[in-house]
Amino acid sequence: MSVLINLAIFPSDKGESVSPYVARVVKIIKESGLTYKFGPMSTCIEGEWDEVMVVVSRCFKELKKDCDRIYISMNVDYRKGPSGRIESKVKSVQNRL
Amino acid sequence: MSVLINLAIFPSDKGESVSPYVARVVKIIKESGLTYKFGPMSTCIEGEWDEVMVVVSRCFKELKKDCDRIYISMNVDYRKGPSGRIESKVKSVQNRL
Amino acid sequence: MSVLINLAIFPSDKGESVSPYVARVVKIIKESGLTYKFGPMSTCIEGEWDEVMVVVSRCFKELKKDCDRIYISMNVDYRKGPSGRIESKVKSVQNRL
Amino acid sequence: MSVLINLAIFPSDKGESVSPYVARVVKIIKESGLTYKFGPMSTCIEGEWDEVMVVVSRCFKELKKDCDRIYISMNVDYRKGPSGRIESKVKSVQNRL
Repeated sequence: MSVLINLAIFPSDKGESVSPYVARVVKIIKESGLTYKFGPMSTCIEGEWDEVMVVVSRCFKELKKDCDRIYISMNVDYRKGPSGRIESKVKSVQNRL
Repeated sequence: MSVLINLAIFPSDKGESVSPYVARVVKIIKESGLTYKFGPMSTCIEGEWDEVMVVVSRCFKELKKDCDRIYISMNVDYRKGPSGRIESKVKSVQNRL
Repeated sequence: MSVLINLAIFPSDKGESVSPYVARVVKIIKESGLTYKFGPMSTCIEGEWDEVMVVVSRCFKELKKDCDRIYISMNVDYRKGPSGRIESKVKSVQNRL
Repeated sequence: MSVLINLAIFPSDKGESVSPYVARVVKIIKESGLTYKFGPMSTCIEGEWDEVMVVVSRCFKELKKDCDRIYISMNVDYRKGPSGRIESKVKSVQNRL
Protein backbone atom coordinates (compact mmCIF):
# COMPACT_ATOMS: atom_id res chain seq x y z
CA MET A 1 0.00 0.00 0.00
CA SER A 2 2.93 2.30 -0.49
CA VAL A 3 3.13 5.51 -2.50
CA LEU A 4 5.77 6.74 -4.91
CA ILE A 5 6.63 10.41 -4.72
CA ASN A 6 8.72 12.57 -6.98
CA LEU A 7 10.17 15.42 -4.95
CA ALA A 8 11.94 18.59 -6.11
CA ILE A 9 12.73 21.16 -3.43
CA PHE A 10 15.09 24.14 -3.67
CA PRO A 11 15.58 27.69 -2.40
CA SER A 12 14.86 30.45 -4.91
CA ASP A 13 16.58 33.23 -2.95
CA LYS A 14 20.15 31.87 -3.19
CA GLY A 15 21.05 32.63 -6.79
CA GLU A 16 21.78 30.30 -9.66
CA SER A 17 23.67 27.53 -7.92
CA VAL A 18 21.75 25.48 -5.36
CA SER A 19 23.52 22.11 -5.21
CA PRO A 20 24.69 22.55 -1.56
CA TYR A 21 21.01 22.87 -0.57
CA VAL A 22 19.92 19.92 -2.70
CA ALA A 23 22.69 17.84 -1.10
CA ARG A 24 21.31 18.58 2.38
CA VAL A 25 17.90 17.38 1.24
CA VAL A 26 19.21 14.20 -0.38
CA LYS A 27 21.16 13.44 2.80
CA ILE A 28 17.92 13.52 4.79
CA ILE A 29 16.20 11.24 2.28
CA LYS A 30 19.14 8.82 2.35
CA GLU A 31 19.18 8.71 6.15
CA SER A 32 15.44 7.99 6.25
CA GLY A 33 16.10 4.44 5.16
CA LEU A 34 13.34 4.59 2.52
CA THR A 35 13.99 3.33 -1.01
CA TYR A 36 14.84 6.24 -3.28
CA LYS A 37 16.29 7.11 -6.69
CA PHE A 38 18.06 10.41 -7.08
CA GLY A 39 17.62 11.99 -10.52
CA PRO A 40 18.63 15.16 -12.38
CA MET A 41 15.46 17.06 -11.51
CA SER A 42 13.86 15.23 -8.61
CA THR A 43 14.20 12.35 -6.17
CA CYS A 44 11.76 9.46 -6.29
CA ILE A 45 10.93 7.94 -2.88
CA GLU A 46 8.82 4.90 -2.04
CA GLY A 47 7.15 4.28 1.32
CA GLU A 48 3.94 4.44 3.31
CA TRP A 49 2.16 7.80 2.97
CA ASP A 50 2.85 8.85 6.57
CA GLU A 51 6.54 7.93 6.55
CA VAL A 52 7.14 9.66 3.21
CA MET A 53 5.38 12.81 4.42
CA VAL A 54 7.60 12.88 7.53
CA VAL A 55 10.65 12.91 5.25
CA VAL A 56 9.22 15.70 3.07
CA SER A 57 8.54 17.79 6.21
CA ARG A 58 12.06 17.16 7.46
CA CYS A 59 13.50 18.36 4.10
CA PHE A 60 11.38 21.51 4.16
CA LYS A 61 12.31 22.35 7.75
CA GLU A 62 16.00 21.79 7.04
CA LEU A 63 16.00 24.39 4.23
CA LYS A 64 13.77 26.78 6.20
CA LYS A 65 16.64 27.22 8.67
CA ASP A 66 18.54 29.49 6.29
CA CYS A 67 16.37 29.98 3.19
CA ASP A 68 13.80 32.76 2.99
CA ARG A 69 12.08 31.45 -0.12
CA ILE A 70 11.62 27.78 -0.98
CA TYR A 71 9.80 26.08 -3.86
CA ILE A 72 8.57 22.50 -3.85
CA SER A 73 7.18 20.51 -6.75
CA MET A 74 5.91 17.11 -5.70
CA ASN A 75 3.93 14.38 -7.42
CA VAL A 76 2.46 11.33 -5.74
CA ASP A 77 1.39 8.09 -7.40
CA TYR A 78 -0.59 5.72 -5.18
CA ARG A 79 -1.63 2.30 -6.32
CA LYS A 80 -3.27 -0.29 -4.11
CA GLY A 81 -1.21 -3.45 -3.94
CA PRO A 82 2.31 -4.62 -3.19
CA SER A 83 5.20 -2.20 -2.78
CA GLY A 84 8.43 -2.39 -4.79
CA ARG A 85 6.93 -0.25 -7.54
CA ILE A 86 10.00 1.99 -7.74
CA GLU A 87 11.55 -0.95 -9.63
CA SER A 88 8.51 -2.74 -11.06
CA LYS A 89 7.01 0.30 -12.82
CA VAL A 90 10.21 0.86 -14.78
CA LYS A 91 10.47 -2.83 -15.72
CA SER A 92 6.84 -2.99 -16.77
CA VAL A 93 7.42 -0.23 -19.34
CA GLN A 94 10.84 -1.47 -20.46
CA ASN A 95 9.34 -4.90 -21.23
CA ARG A 96 7.05 -3.23 -23.75
CA LEU A 97 9.76 -1.29 -25.59
CA MET B 1 5.63 32.12 8.15
CA SER B 2 2.91 30.41 6.23
CA VAL B 3 3.15 28.47 2.98
CA LEU B 4 0.99 28.55 -0.11
CA ILE B 5 0.25 25.23 -1.75
CA ASN B 6 -1.38 24.39 -5.04
CA LEU B 7 -3.02 20.99 -4.76
CA ALA B 8 -4.45 18.74 -7.49
CA ILE B 9 -5.59 15.28 -6.39
CA PHE B 10 -7.75 12.82 -8.33
CA PRO B 11 -8.30 9.08 -8.87
CA SER B 12 -7.07 7.72 -12.21
CA ASP B 13 -8.98 4.42 -12.01
CA LYS B 14 -12.50 5.86 -12.18
CA GLY B 15 -12.78 6.84 -15.83
CA GLU B 16 -13.13 10.24 -17.42
CA SER B 17 -15.39 11.99 -14.96
CA VAL B 18 -14.00 12.60 -11.48
CA SER B 19 -15.90 15.62 -10.14
CA PRO B 20 -17.60 13.65 -7.31
CA TYR B 21 -14.12 12.76 -5.98
CA VAL B 22 -12.83 16.31 -6.36
CA ALA B 23 -15.89 17.57 -4.48
CA ARG B 24 -15.07 15.29 -1.52
CA VAL B 25 -11.56 16.75 -1.43
CA VAL B 26 -12.72 20.37 -1.65
CA LYS B 27 -15.20 19.70 1.17
CA ILE B 28 -12.30 18.62 3.41
CA ILE B 29 -10.29 21.71 2.50
CA LYS B 30 -13.31 23.94 3.17
CA GLU B 31 -13.95 22.35 6.56
CA SER B 32 -10.29 22.80 7.58
CA GLY B 33 -10.91 26.50 8.10
CA LEU B 34 -7.76 27.42 6.15
CA THR B 35 -7.89 30.16 3.52
CA TYR B 36 -8.25 28.62 0.07
CA LYS B 37 -9.09 29.43 -3.54
CA PHE B 38 -10.65 26.71 -5.66
CA GLY B 39 -9.60 26.82 -9.31
CA PRO B 40 -10.18 24.87 -12.54
CA MET B 41 -7.12 22.65 -12.12
CA SER B 42 -6.07 22.93 -8.48
CA THR B 43 -6.92 24.42 -5.11
CA CYS B 44 -4.59 26.96 -3.51
CA ILE B 45 -4.38 26.77 0.30
CA GLU B 46 -2.55 29.04 2.74
CA GLY B 47 -1.48 28.00 6.23
CA GLU B 48 1.37 26.85 8.44
CA TRP B 49 3.31 23.94 6.92
CA ASP B 50 2.09 21.41 9.49
CA GLU B 51 -1.56 22.36 9.30
CA VAL B 52 -1.56 22.37 5.50
CA MET B 53 0.09 18.93 5.43
CA VAL B 54 -2.59 17.56 7.78
CA VAL B 55 -5.23 18.68 5.27
CA VAL B 56 -3.37 17.10 2.33
CA SER B 57 -3.12 13.81 4.25
CA ARG B 58 -6.82 13.94 5.07
CA CYS B 59 -7.65 14.43 1.36
CA PHE B 60 -5.45 11.50 0.33
CA LYS B 61 -6.92 9.18 2.98
CA GLU B 62 -10.46 10.14 2.00
CA LEU B 63 -9.91 9.08 -1.64
CA LYS B 64 -7.94 5.99 -0.61
CA LYS B 65 -11.15 4.59 0.92
CA ASP B 66 -12.55 3.69 -2.49
CA CYS B 67 -9.89 4.55 -5.11
CA ASP B 68 -7.21 2.07 -6.12
CA ARG B 69 -5.05 4.57 -7.98
CA ILE B 70 -4.60 8.23 -7.03
CA TYR B 71 -2.42 10.96 -8.51
CA ILE B 72 -1.36 14.11 -6.70
CA SER B 73 0.42 17.12 -8.14
CA MET B 74 1.36 19.65 -5.49
CA ASN B 75 3.48 22.78 -5.46
CA VAL B 76 4.54 24.69 -2.38
CA ASP B 77 5.76 28.29 -2.21
CA TYR B 78 7.26 29.35 1.12
CA ARG B 79 8.34 32.87 1.81
CA LYS B 80 9.51 34.12 5.18
CA GLY B 81 7.32 36.95 6.42
CA PRO B 82 3.68 37.80 7.01
CA SER B 83 0.86 35.56 5.83
CA GLY B 84 -2.03 36.75 3.64
CA ARG B 85 0.00 36.02 0.52
CA ILE B 86 -2.92 34.22 -1.16
CA GLU B 87 -4.24 37.77 -1.74
CA SER B 88 -1.08 39.88 -1.72
CA LYS B 89 0.79 37.89 -4.39
CA VAL B 90 -2.03 38.40 -6.88
CA LYS B 91 -2.27 42.13 -6.10
CA SER B 92 1.47 42.58 -6.36
CA VAL B 93 1.41 41.30 -9.96
CA GLN B 94 -1.83 43.06 -10.94
CA ASN B 95 -0.36 46.40 -9.83
CA ARG B 96 2.36 45.94 -12.41
CA LEU B 97 0.08 45.17 -15.35
CA MET C 1 -10.91 19.63 -27.97
CA SER C 2 -9.10 22.19 -25.93
CA VAL C 3 -6.69 21.68 -23.05
CA LEU C 4 -6.46 23.40 -19.71
CA ILE C 5 -2.99 24.18 -18.46
CA ASN C 6 -1.80 25.41 -15.10
CA LEU C 7 1.42 27.35 -15.59
CA ALA C 8 3.95 28.58 -13.01
CA ILE C 9 7.15 30.13 -14.39
CA PHE C 10 9.71 32.21 -12.51
CA PRO C 11 13.46 32.98 -12.40
CA SER C 12 15.35 31.44 -9.49
CA ASP C 13 18.46 33.62 -9.84
CA LYS C 14 16.83 36.95 -8.98
CA GLY C 15 16.38 36.66 -5.23
CA GLU C 16 13.25 36.52 -3.15
CA SER C 17 11.01 38.94 -5.01
CA VAL C 18 9.97 37.98 -8.55
CA SER C 19 6.69 39.78 -9.18
CA PRO C 20 8.14 42.02 -11.97
CA TYR C 21 9.02 38.83 -13.89
CA VAL C 22 5.65 37.20 -13.22
CA ALA C 23 3.96 40.38 -14.46
CA ARG C 24 5.83 40.15 -17.80
CA VAL C 25 4.60 36.59 -18.19
CA VAL C 26 0.98 37.39 -17.32
CA LYS C 27 1.07 40.28 -19.81
CA ILE C 28 2.01 37.81 -22.57
CA ILE C 29 -0.80 35.44 -21.56
CA LYS C 30 -3.30 38.32 -21.48
CA GLU C 31 -2.25 39.55 -24.93
CA SER C 32 -2.60 36.05 -26.39
CA GLY C 33 -6.37 36.42 -26.31
CA LEU C 34 -6.81 32.96 -24.75
CA THR C 35 -9.14 32.51 -21.77
CA TYR C 36 -7.14 32.54 -18.55
CA LYS C 37 -7.45 32.81 -14.77
CA PHE C 38 -4.57 34.29 -12.84
CA GLY C 39 -4.11 32.75 -9.39
CA PRO C 40 -1.75 33.05 -6.42
CA MET C 41 0.58 30.26 -7.57
CA SER C 42 -0.15 29.71 -11.25
CA THR C 43 -2.15 30.86 -14.22
CA CYS C 44 -4.74 28.57 -15.78
CA ILE C 45 -5.10 28.90 -19.57
CA GLU C 46 -7.57 27.24 -21.93
CA GLY C 47 -6.99 26.71 -25.65
CA GLU C 48 -6.00 24.30 -28.37
CA TRP C 49 -2.77 22.41 -27.56
CA ASP C 50 -0.73 24.17 -30.25
CA GLU C 51 -1.88 27.68 -29.41
CA VAL C 52 -1.32 27.18 -25.68
CA MET C 53 2.19 25.81 -26.30
CA VAL C 54 3.04 28.88 -28.40
CA VAL C 55 2.12 31.07 -25.41
CA VAL C 56 4.22 28.96 -23.01
CA SER C 57 7.21 29.25 -25.37
CA ARG C 58 6.73 32.99 -25.61
CA CYS C 59 6.73 33.28 -21.80
CA PHE C 60 9.92 31.21 -21.50
CA LYS C 61 11.73 33.20 -24.19
CA GLU C 62 10.71 36.50 -22.60
CA LEU C 63 12.31 35.56 -19.26
CA LYS C 64 15.35 33.99 -20.95
CA LYS C 65 16.30 37.48 -22.19
CA ASP C 66 17.58 38.47 -18.75
CA CYS C 67 17.29 35.44 -16.46
CA ASP C 68 20.04 32.85 -16.19
CA ARG C 69 17.99 30.27 -14.33
CA ILE C 70 14.27 29.66 -14.84
CA TYR C 71 11.92 27.08 -13.34
CA ILE C 72 8.61 26.01 -14.85
CA SER C 73 5.95 23.83 -13.28
CA MET C 74 3.13 23.03 -15.68
CA ASN C 75 0.17 20.69 -15.60
CA VAL C 76 -2.11 19.90 -18.52
CA ASP C 77 -5.61 18.44 -18.38
CA TYR C 78 -7.02 17.31 -21.72
CA ARG C 79 -10.55 16.05 -22.08
CA LYS C 80 -12.20 15.24 -25.37
CA GLY C 81 -15.31 17.32 -25.89
CA PRO C 82 -16.45 20.93 -25.84
CA SER C 83 -14.25 23.74 -24.58
CA GLY C 84 -15.29 26.19 -21.84
CA ARG C 85 -13.99 23.84 -19.17
CA ILE C 86 -12.16 26.65 -17.36
CA GLU C 87 -15.65 27.58 -16.10
CA SER C 88 -17.55 24.30 -16.30
CA LYS C 89 -15.08 22.24 -14.22
CA VAL C 90 -15.40 24.65 -11.31
CA LYS C 91 -19.21 24.69 -11.53
CA SER C 92 -19.39 20.93 -11.75
CA VAL C 93 -17.61 20.59 -8.42
CA GLN C 94 -19.41 23.52 -6.74
CA ASN C 95 -22.77 21.96 -7.60
CA ARG C 96 -21.78 18.95 -5.52
CA LEU C 97 -20.72 20.89 -2.41
CA MET D 1 21.64 26.73 -23.50
CA SER D 2 19.65 23.58 -23.14
CA VAL D 3 16.77 22.85 -20.76
CA LEU D 4 16.07 19.83 -18.63
CA ILE D 5 12.47 18.71 -18.44
CA ASN D 6 10.80 16.15 -16.23
CA LEU D 7 7.78 14.76 -18.05
CA ALA D 8 4.93 12.60 -16.74
CA ILE D 9 2.04 11.96 -19.15
CA PHE D 10 -0.70 9.37 -18.84
CA PRO D 11 -4.38 8.76 -19.69
CA SER D 12 -6.78 8.91 -16.74
CA ASP D 13 -9.70 7.24 -18.54
CA LYS D 14 -8.10 3.80 -19.01
CA GLY D 15 -8.28 2.36 -15.49
CA GLU D 16 -5.52 1.45 -13.10
CA SER D 17 -2.92 0.04 -15.46
CA VAL D 18 -1.38 2.44 -17.98
CA SER D 19 2.03 0.99 -18.82
CA PRO D 20 1.15 0.30 -22.52
CA TYR D 21 0.45 4.03 -22.91
CA VAL D 22 3.60 5.06 -21.06
CA ALA D 23 5.62 2.71 -23.30
CA ARG D 24 4.28 4.48 -26.42
CA VAL D 25 5.42 7.80 -24.97
CA VAL D 26 8.88 6.55 -23.99
CA LYS D 27 9.32 5.09 -27.49
CA ILE D 28 8.73 8.58 -28.97
CA ILE D 29 11.25 10.12 -26.56
CA LYS D 30 13.80 7.42 -27.39
CA GLU D 31 13.37 7.90 -31.14
CA SER D 32 13.82 11.67 -30.79
CA GLY D 33 17.54 11.17 -30.28
CA LEU D 34 17.59 13.53 -27.29
CA THR D 35 19.40 12.50 -24.09
CA TYR D 36 16.89 11.11 -21.58
CA LYS D 37 16.62 9.17 -18.33
CA PHE D 38 13.53 7.09 -17.76
CA GLY D 39 12.45 6.94 -14.12
CA PRO D 40 9.64 5.43 -12.02
CA MET D 41 7.43 8.51 -12.16
CA SER D 42 8.73 10.64 -15.02
CA THR D 43 11.23 10.87 -17.84
CA CYS D 44 13.95 13.50 -17.77
CA ILE D 45 14.93 14.90 -21.18
CA GLU D 46 17.68 17.35 -22.13
CA GLY D 47 17.70 19.50 -25.24
CA GLU D 48 17.05 22.92 -26.72
CA TRP D 49 13.66 24.35 -25.69
CA ASP D 50 12.15 24.08 -29.18
CA GLU D 51 13.28 20.51 -29.81
CA VAL D 52 12.10 19.33 -26.38
CA MET D 53 8.70 20.97 -26.89
CA VAL D 54 8.32 19.19 -30.26
CA VAL D 55 8.81 15.86 -28.45
CA VAL D 56 6.28 16.75 -25.74
CA SER D 57 3.72 17.67 -28.43
CA ARG D 58 4.38 14.40 -30.24
CA CYS D 59 3.78 12.45 -27.01
CA PHE D 60 0.51 14.28 -26.33
CA LYS D 61 -0.77 13.79 -29.89
CA GLU D 62 0.11 10.09 -29.79
CA LEU D 63 -2.04 9.51 -26.70
CA LYS D 64 -4.83 11.77 -27.97
CA LYS D 65 -5.43 9.24 -30.76
CA ASP D 66 -7.21 6.86 -28.40
CA CYS D 67 -7.40 8.52 -24.98
CA ASP D 68 -10.27 10.82 -24.03
CA ARG D 69 -8.64 12.22 -20.91
CA ILE D 70 -4.92 12.85 -20.49
CA TYR D 71 -2.94 14.40 -17.63
CA ILE D 72 0.53 15.90 -17.95
CA SER D 73 2.81 17.05 -15.18
CA MET D 74 5.94 18.73 -16.47
CA ASN D 75 8.77 20.68 -14.87
CA VAL D 76 11.45 22.60 -16.71
CA ASP D 77 14.82 23.70 -15.37
CA TYR D 78 16.72 26.15 -17.58
CA ARG D 79 20.21 27.31 -16.76
CA LYS D 80 22.35 29.43 -19.04
CA GLY D 81 25.58 27.70 -19.92
CA PRO D 82 26.83 24.40 -21.31
CA SER D 83 24.55 21.40 -21.81
CA GLY D 84 25.25 17.95 -20.34
CA ARG D 85 23.43 18.91 -17.15
CA ILE D 86 21.42 15.66 -17.10
CA GLU D 87 24.71 14.13 -15.85
CA SER D 88 26.50 17.07 -14.25
CA LYS D 89 23.65 18.07 -11.90
CA VAL D 90 23.59 14.60 -10.36
CA LYS D 91 27.37 14.52 -9.96
CA SER D 92 27.45 17.98 -8.45
CA VAL D 93 25.14 16.84 -5.64
CA GLN D 94 26.75 13.41 -5.19
CA ASN D 95 30.15 15.06 -4.68
CA ARG D 96 28.73 16.84 -1.68
CA LEU D 97 27.24 13.78 0.03
